[in-house]
Amino acid sequence: MAEHNATAVTGSPMKKLKDGDDNGAAAAVNGGGNISSVIPGWFSEISPMWPGEAHSLKVEKILFQGKSDYQDVMVFQSATYGKVLVLDGVIQLTERDECAYQEMITHLPLCSIPNPKKVLVIGGGDGGVLREVARHSSVEHIDICEIDKMVVDVSKEYFPDVAVGYEDPRVTLHVGDGVAFLKAAQEGSYDAVIVDSSDPIGPAQELFEKPFFESVAKALRPGGVMCTQAESIWLHMHIIENIVANCRQIFKGSVNYAWTTVPTYPSGVIGFMVCSTEGPEVDFKNPINPIDEKENQNTSTPPLKFYNREIHAAAFCLPSFAKKVIESKTKN
Amino acid sequence: MAEHNATAVTGSPMKKLKDGDDNGAAAAVNGGGNISSVIPGWFSEISPMWPGEAHSLKVEKILFQGKSDYQDVMVFQSATYGKVLVLDGVIQLTERDECAYQEMITHLPLCSIPNPKKVLVIGGGDGGVLREVARHSSVEHIDICEIDKMVVDVSKEYFPDVAVGYEDPRVTLHVGDGVAFLKAAQEGSYDAVIVDSSDPIGPAQELFEKPFFESVAKALRPGGVMCTQAESIWLHMHIIENIVANCRQIFKGSVNYAWTTVPTYPSGVIGFMVCSTEGPEVDFKNPINPIDEKENQNTSTPPLKFYNREIHAAAFCLPSFAKKVIESKTKN
Repeated sequence: MAEHNATAVTGSPMKKLKDGDDNGAAAAVNGGGNISSVIPGWFSEISPMWPGEAHSLKVEKILFQGKSDYQDVMVFQSATYGKVLVLDGVIQLTERDECAYQEMITHLPLCSIPNPKKVLVIGGGDGGVLREVARHSSVEHIDICEIDKMVVDVSKEYFPDVAVGYEDPRVTLHVGDGVAFLKAAQEGSYDAVIVDSSDPIGPAQELFEKPFFESVAKALRPGGVMCTQAESIWLHMHIIENIVANCRQIFKGSVNYAWTTVPTYPSGVIGFMVCSTEGPEVDFKNPINPIDEKENQNTSTPPLKFYNREIHAAAFCLPSFAKKVIESKTKN
Repeated sequence: MAEHNATAVTGSPMKKLKDGDDNGAAAAVNGGGNISSVIPGWFSEISPMWPGEAHSLKVEKILFQGKSDYQDVMVFQSATYGKVLVLDGVIQLTERDECAYQEMITHLPLCSIPNPKKVLVIGGGDGGVLREVARHSSVEHIDICEIDKMVVDVSKEYFPDVAVGYEDPRVTLHVGDGVAFLKAAQEGSYDAVIVDSSDPIGPAQELFEKPFFESVAKALRPGGVMCTQAESIWLHMHIIENIVANCRQIFKGSVNYAWTTVPTYPSGVIGFMVCSTEGPEVDFKNPINPIDEKENQNTSTPPLKFYNREIHAAAFCLPSFAKKVIESKTKN
């Protein structure tokens, strides 16, 4: 999941519904300051990260509401997107479209290198990225560092098809700060680091800055790969521009931006920075480790829903307005 | 624009705002029956075509509201997407993201054939497709058949950068029914037909059925091409499945589904059926008429914002869940 930081919205109609028939939403998860109203019976996502627009989902039933040490956590049953995980008022995943995000953030890096063995996931507490990493039979060890144990517990309870990733015996869960974990990681020890992070405002800001990328690069073996959540080309080109410039300075191998469709994320798309360190060359645009074909031979794993070899290559093709900006930063 | 049919939503907060300070939305364009409430000061798009979800845009000012013989027409200034054209409560285009739709629906067909000369546009009253067709210097004649003159007039008044397409001397506007126009069209007379249509519920239903596709195929020269709006892979696979099956029966050349991102369309994506008639082979996935390179030499036309050769090819790469269904219908 992409752990965006934003402000949940609420209003009296929601509260009324919630008290009356357990059919409300959002009211109790309003962790921020921006109070607004919502369509009664609907969850609406409003944030300064995407001003002037909001996506709303009809709420059938609120299944969980809690406040962890780090954020407000909510799970609701939506009318048409299955169960939905919301952190600090922002949708992290829905059962209907989580496949697109989890499969792409995982297989873009892992299908681009031969025989990945040791993988680190930063964030990704729902377990979806783990589920996808586990499809790679070459992988021997998967570390995950998630700061919020409540996200892990809630995911195991309400999203078993996502949290199934924790069941793989190769997984070791570290509950703690990803920045500190990476600083302490053994140099050159990972084949891949996947950063399933929140937006670069608030607590996750560090995960988009140079020192963090330096830690990632240091923890990777030569020719090792990173894939990190990198916002929307429609909404956040100014942020992307900075991320690309930072990565270009740190990663001396290949530096690329890829993107995919996720209907319940703002603007309907989400991007990824996909980089490699100096060492054996990595050509991300032409995957050499075809999980989709391998996976067809393994009937014990449910099939991939989204990722395939063509969509991998296509993810690196950018609209002209984005290509122009990103290429100017990658070719400096 | 994709002329979706849906129900605008309204509520007393909107009316109050509108009466008070001209800052409301949607209320007066409620052409359907589903009355609901909206976030005050925001336009919300709710429809049985995408149940359980709604996208909302903050309204700065309503610029136009009218009722034509066919539909409710509204233009508003949004907070962050520029001016917005709404028909029967559904967003048709915004200044911020119209480029993605107009450029893709036009250049996917026109860049796939050599020297298109005669082009027909069905729908597309805003003029955006005309603007894009006009980039092709080989084109000698452009017919457009739009049923609703109010859409043409409103676009010329409020969206000059879109309606600029009408200024090209090669354009002939026919105000009338596209189905009838095509039936009367001379056999084999067009190189390309672009169908910028509404959703297959209500008046546009005919445009997704076999007799209409038969008329299109008949109006095209051998090896001529059609591109028609074909819904969202996330929301409408059942509709897409039927469209693909129908096209497969009618078009004896190439039958393909392509898609692109448009943030203000439901689920953030929209698809296109891209087909050719029997005749010289058309390989849509490898464009042979590179508008982006040609266009760089012509400084009088504003540059393409979205389309390029790579994004053209990438548009035909589908997520596995969609590929499976679409390939089963195209390879029968």
